Amino acid sequence: MTALVLETDAARTLAATTLVETVMATIRQRIAARSLTPGARLPSIRAFAKSMRVSKSTVVEAYERLAAEGTIRSRPGSGFYAAGQLAPLSLAEIGPRLDREVDPLWVSRQSLEAGDEVLKPGCGWLPAAWMPQAALRRALRTAARADDVALADYGTPLGLAPLRQLLARRMAGHGIEAAPEQIMLTESGTQAIDLLCRFLIEPGDTVLVDDPCYFNFHALLLAHRAKVVSVPYTPSGPDIDLFAAALAEHRPRLYITNSGIHNPTGAILSPVTAHRLLKLADQADLTIVEDDIFADFEHSPAPRLAAFDGLNRVVQIGSFSKTLSASVRCGFIAAPRDWIEQLIDLKIATTFGGGRLAAELVLTLLKDGSYRKHVEALRIRLARAMAETSARLKPIGITPWIEQPAGLFLWCSLPEGLDAAEVARRALADSVVLAPGNAFSLSGTASRFLRFNVAQSADERIFTALEAAMSA
Amino acid sequence: MTALVLETDAARTLAATTLVETVMATIRQRIAARSLTPGARLPSIRAFAKSMRVSKSTVVEAYERLAAEGTIRSRPGSGFYAAGQLAPLSLAEIGPRLDREVDPLWVSRQSLEAGDEVLKPGCGWLPAAWMPQAALRRALRTAARADDVALADYGTPLGLAPLRQLLARRMAGHGIEAAPEQIMLTESGTQAIDLLCRFLIEPGDTVLVDDPCYFNFHALLLAHRAKVVSVPYTPSGPDIDLFAAALAEHRPRLYITNSGIHNPTGAILSPVTAHRLLKLADQADLTIVEDDIFADFEHSPAPRLAAFDGLNRVVQIGSFSKTLSASVRCGFIAAPRDWIEQLIDLKIATTFGGGRLAAELVLTLLKDGSYRKHVEALRIRLARAMAETSARLKPIGITPWIEQPAGLFLWCSLPEGLDAAEVARRALADSVVLAPGNAFSLSGTASRFLRFNVAQSADERIFTALEAAMSA
Repeated sequence: MTALVLETDAARTLAATTLVETVMATIRQRIAARSLTPGARLPSIRAFAKSMRVSKSTVVEAYERLAAEGTIRSRPGSGFYAAGQLAPLSLAEIGPRLDREVDPLWVSRQSLEAGDEVLKPGCGWLPAAWMPQAALRRALRTAARADDVALADYGTPLGLAPLRQLLARRMAGHGIEAAPEQIMLTESGTQAIDLLCRFLIEPGDTVLVDDPCYFNFHALLLAHRAKVVSVPYTPSGPDIDLFAAALAEHRPRLYITNSGIHNPTGAILSPVTAHRLLKLADQADLTIVEDDIFADFEHSPAPRLAAFDGLNRVVQIGSFSKTLSASVRCGFIAAPRDWIEQLIDLKIATTFGGGRLAAELVLTLLKDGSYRKHVEALRIRLARAMAETSARLKPIGITPWIEQPAGLFLWCSLPEGLDAAEVARRALADSVVLAPGNAFSLSGTASRFLRFNVAQSADERIFTALEAAMSA
Repeated sequence: MTALVLETDAARTLAATTLVETVMATIRQRIAARSLTPGARLPSIRAFAKSMRVSKSTVVEAYERLAAEGTIRSRPGSGFYAAGQLAPLSLAEIGPRLDREVDPLWVSRQSLEAGDEVLKPGCGWLPAAWMPQAALRRALRTAARADDVALADYGTPLGLAPLRQLLARRMAGHGIEAAPEQIMLTESGTQAIDLLCRFLIEPGDTVLVDDPCYFNFHALLLAHRAKVVSVPYTPSGPDIDLFAAALAEHRPRLYITNSGIHNPTGAILSPVTAHRLLKLADQADLTIVEDDIFADFEHSPAPRLAAFDGLNRVVQIGSFSKTLSASVRCGFIAAPRDWIEQLIDLKIATTFGGGRLAAELVLTLLKDGSYRKHVEALRIRLARAMAETSARLKPIGITPWIEQPAGLFLWCSLPEGLDAAEVARRALADSVVLAPGNAFSLSGTASRFLRFNVAQSADERIFTALEAAMSA
């Protein structure tokens, strides 16, 4: 299917070039799209000539030239085969062509690879200094006194039982009924969603996301070869009429969202939207992955799809990478009971026993109350930073989309006529990593937006660079 | 394809039952095999009646009954669709039907879920007490004094640079030239292989494994929907003639092996086999994943495919779960240079920044020499345990396949007429987890074999239970 699309694209874009080159490009793109996998036999010269409406001699020449360049290999007497080393999965190749500045993977790498000298208002996490350093150090010293098994053995397939019991109690606090046996620890929130994608979708399946949404969802779904469809996000959740239309038109298998504090907009799902959304999901038999990793930033708990639905068709994801440490990674999945056995099999097959130490450290921090105190202080600190960043942005014409109630993100629009990707490109030259709107927007309709991480926006140089980039 | 196979199977196995049930079973199995994905439209009644060679009324009744049981859903005017919640990926369903005792996932779970009261001569790792506990505790105390970034930030996409430099030097010691930029840290060895499978193979691709091989390879490849073909392993490596035949017949995309100390046989790859194998791989353009996680158990380094090949078509995997800690998980991939950018993208998309703390801990242990001292002591201790276990097994008629030179496994055959799966089933009733041969053997030709972990075989109760199970 993909191959066909690419093939006609090729035919179109290469109309001007010679027939031989068109045939060569078609084969190259079939290999890139992996409809021709390494070692696979190429179409016979006769058949391909017919399907391409060219002469056999044209195909012969194209095959010979592809063999000469090593793209395909000739086996005397048995025809031509796609060569082996050429087509490992390249997200860059199978994905849509995007400017670097708005390519989800590029934006992630900018932040992950940035040195200390680089300012990162575009990144998605707190500065290390905002994390509970003293408590983390105490937890490590506690771990140094743990028993041998805790320090050296694999975790159990579901993960550390006392931590799962504690997570179940925390979820109950958000109105989500999840038994500890319904909770499976994972290496991270991202790995949790990845595992669920493997569990729930096939290449070619359609997945619904918010527009805008966390940009790594796009990269992750690309890795799963999913067809991604997006629905505009409003200040109270996805646009429910367009959501209904998308269900009817695309019959998506899955909807991935964060409903706590939405990334990047900071919007909060309203109860009425949550209720209507779940009714639609029931009718369309849609599964929902609710990525709730920002839950602990909330001042007052917002409605949760998992709470309304009772973990029937909604599966919830959590993690401590945003609030505790991204170095001590530990995420979890709360899933419908009858999925757990199969999820365990999939987890063992792909990661064997999960890392136990991270779970032990998280458990220590959650148990002794230092995590609770930390996030309480964090909320206040973030609220102040939110106000300060907002106050610093407005005078230079950068306007928050809504008054964010909580969290670390301000989703802002630039003045009329400015392109966020262009501004980001210029700011990067001044060692400031921004997050331009279209990295979050499948429809590419957020070209005037930037996402600011208020915890990473204290440095005055950010705004100097920003103003320079905007006025350039 | 799969669906077709299943379909004819269904037709065969259900020949005795009614036509309506045959049609129902066919649809159910297409859904199980995911050739009919949730929400997908079922074949039209007319078309399906034709293809199944039954009357339209038979298909109508079958569809009605499937709709009544909720397997499919009828949409007035638009036909029938596969229901949504029924077909998440179930390794148990897509895999071959196996007795639990030889099901790779079941064997893994037995060991991972076993409580302290259970004896695990069948498991694949060292007892926690054999791990460098003092050094691990020291490393945790050191980590407690690390800088804020080390404790709270994401790792870089490739992973901690000083650790990669150190790994590069270690590999050089095994004759493998890998620049630090060719090494990418992963959450574990299993996750490394999983990432490479995603990178290199498509559902339906053929992958070559050893027979016997590490049983989780079977589960992992099942999760990737690969077609698995196995080649008998000899005391000096894979049977090279059968290896050549398998390449010619099945054109595999990938070969996954451990060549250091082979799991489960403990065999060592000979230089001549390594050389011939790589020549065949070159001719067939085959990529090889060399899982080298047992490297540090070697007394004298065996030939490495990665060393002979120079990381051209061989990618090497390493990990510290077996020698240092399975709780502090850290693995790595040493790959051809031109793969790294794409591997980084795939890693970010599926796990984002890797856990940094584990890498910091491993680095501390490798740097201060405590790891080297630990593995030196470990080799001696394992050699002694190997001799003791072997001496304890021979009198009861359990014979090692070869005299293992190193490592933690003894691959042994039972006396004529005994079935390892049956023995394992009985031993489990006495709380002894064994690893029966056919869990490792795709061809199912190891029904008389058991794999013993000599580090987990000190307890006399194991042999009491074993003798009882054998004489029952």
